[in-house]
Amino acid sequence: MQAVTKQQWTLKSRPEGIPDRSEIDIETRTIEDVPPEHLLIECLYFSLDPAIRGWMSETPSYLPPIPIGDPVRSTVVGRVQHSEADGFNVGDLVVGMGAWETHGVVPAAFFTVIPPDSPFPAHYYLSVLGAVGLTPYFGLLRAGKATAGQTLLMSAAAGAVGSLGGQIGKILGQRVVGLAGTDEKCRWVTEELGFDDCINYKTCGDMENAIRTACPEGVDLFFDNVGGETLDAALMNLNKDATIVFCGSISNYNATEPTPGPYNWWQVLARSVTVQGYLISDYVAEFPEGQAQMAEWLQAGQLKFKEHIVEGFENCLDAYNLLFEGKNEGKLMVKV
Amino acid sequence: MQAVTKQQWTLKSRPEGIPDRSEIDIETRTIEDVPPEHLLIECLYFSLDPAIRGWMSETPSYLPPIPIGDPVRSTVVGRVQHSEADGFNVGDLVVGMGAWETHGVVPAAFFTVIPPDSPFPAHYYLSVLGAVGLTPYFGLLRAGKATAGQTLLMSAAAGAVGSLGGQIGKILGQRVVGLAGTDEKCRWVTEELGFDDCINYKTCGDMENAIRTACPEGVDLFFDNVGGETLDAALMNLNKDATIVFCGSISNYNATEPTPGPYNWWQVLARSVTVQGYLISDYVAEFPEGQAQMAEWLQAGQLKFKEHIVEGFENCLDAYNLLFEGKNEGKLMVKV
Repeated sequence: MQAVTKQQWTLKSRPEGIPDRSEIDIETRTIEDVPPEHLLIECLYFSLDPAIRGWMSETPSYLPPIPIGDPVRSTVVGRVQHSEADGFNVGDLVVGMGAWETHGVVPAAFFTVIPPDSPFPAHYYLSVLGAVGLTPYFGLLRAGKATAGQTLLMSAAAGAVGSLGGQIGKILGQRVVGLAGTDEKCRWVTEELGFDDCINYKTCGDMENAIRTACPEGVDLFFDNVGGETLDAALMNLNKDATIVFCGSISNYNATEPTPGPYNWWQVLARSVTVQGYLISDYVAEFPEGQAQMAEWLQAGQLKFKEHIVEGFENCLDAYNLLFEGKNEGKLMVKV
Repeated sequence: MQAVTKQQWTLKSRPEGIPDRSEIDIETRTIEDVPPEHLLIECLYFSLDPAIRGWMSETPSYLPPIPIGDPVRSTVVGRVQHSEADGFNVGDLVVGMGAWETHGVVPAAFFTVIPPDSPFPAHYYLSVLGAVGLTPYFGLLRAGKATAGQTLLMSAAAGAVGSLGGQIGKILGQRVVGLAGTDEKCRWVTEELGFDDCINYKTCGDMENAIRTACPEGVDLFFDNVGGETLDAALMNLNKDATIVFCGSISNYNATEPTPGPYNWWQVLARSVTVQGYLISDYVAEFPEGQAQMAEWLQAGQLKFKEHIVEGFENCLDAYNLLFEGKNEGKLMVKV
């Protein structure tokens, strides 16, 4: 094959706090060959997720830290330009674990082909039909054992995961209360998405009291994407035998010192709470089932969602940091 | 009935740190009558448990805080002196939730009669056949879903709950590793109780590494009575899908400032851990089953345990504080 020149966002050092271009920057590389069981793809979309921040650091996690010098790991949609793996053909649209780069050589095992007859645009496979939609789906139904009639409290309610999670809760017959950082976000999830209530955690004053007011029968299921003070406030409102689905902890991702677990940790014991650490990757074998259900709800008009697509490879890092400023509106992606 | 003069250890104010006699002290009271559905008992033994320290504070917990001016709440064995409740007769030995007092008027609903034909001494019903034995029994078998072949890590391994829990683990066919604070305690649990290994957390250096060495296949089930640094060290050694039975947090009970949850909280997510907040009181309906099994193991010589019985009502507070100095040897009780 002919050598391909690519650009990539290289992790140059472990970021402190919010990453900047002294730590992650664009470099040029040359691709010269594709090993067996690998694909050469042209990247079309990157998914920008809070979890990536964790992989940039050295803390042990469910995936190894991104090696210094490698491009930043990310879910991507791409088009196959060269295949050394059965089941993948030049021109196929694929989705899987790649990196912030214009072209990549990736293990075929990390990718799946988007059905050519899919009625949905390719970038849906990074959002509602990808991890973003499947995360609340399996998180609520499996990890959280969600049932009708429960009160569901959803942090980061206007985020990609939270907004879909709350709608799934409504489909399941739950009372759904969100937490979000602007009145506009709160209005969106209540008026457009059907949440029963939403607390603006920036203006509500005492968050513990605000949750108590919005959840007069207590919280049965807390889907936590945020951690920190939000988790502490939620813990004081949990019902006996409540469940916390521990899905993320975005409030801590840019911390430059070790951050502790919740101060109200004791309430986990005092209320016989189950905390379920939750990784979407534990449910890979069930993805087809989840995608089929999400697609059905989507086509029935039962799921609304926002995508926030930033154009231009060169804007990747600035776009990424919108997540930590709370400035993205819906699922954040970059169109290369 | 004739008035009865009693002595009680009164909670005079919320203790800061380790309680002293400015906060809890002996007072004299007079009992003049016994309401319907209540018993007058002469107290014979008090159970001194770390949980009592929690009830002394104002933090919401599974039982309300002990009101200022009331005697310190405690499980007790007593003898009925006057009964206003069906099923209880003068002279019966009873066990239930009473207080640190020589005599008490107690709701009959909080007490059960010790079978007159029991082959065991009455104080066993505060230890191996009481909450102390049933706590690890239901904690391992129900909350922890313990199975053969797992590696069980037990904190406070030489304590009353931990030492029985480790032996139950061995009966179930687990590899059992303890954590204790002296070489003597470690020798006791390995040589006498059959634990596979025990770490002296005071002399082992890096606790995280010490656990790794003692648990080469990782930890599947962590039964935590301690919290704090122990919990943090354990979290770094948990296997994927491990379970933490959160039974207690004695390292924090005398803290005078809010203490955070574990610094390695993120590992709960990263390893898909289930944290199960655990209260023995959730299993009251199953107590007869648990007592029968414990009695069977006990009579078969499969459970060894130590009781540390301090004599004298007036020594109650000093005896209690042995718990926080790690100086009790086995289940701590006071013989009135």
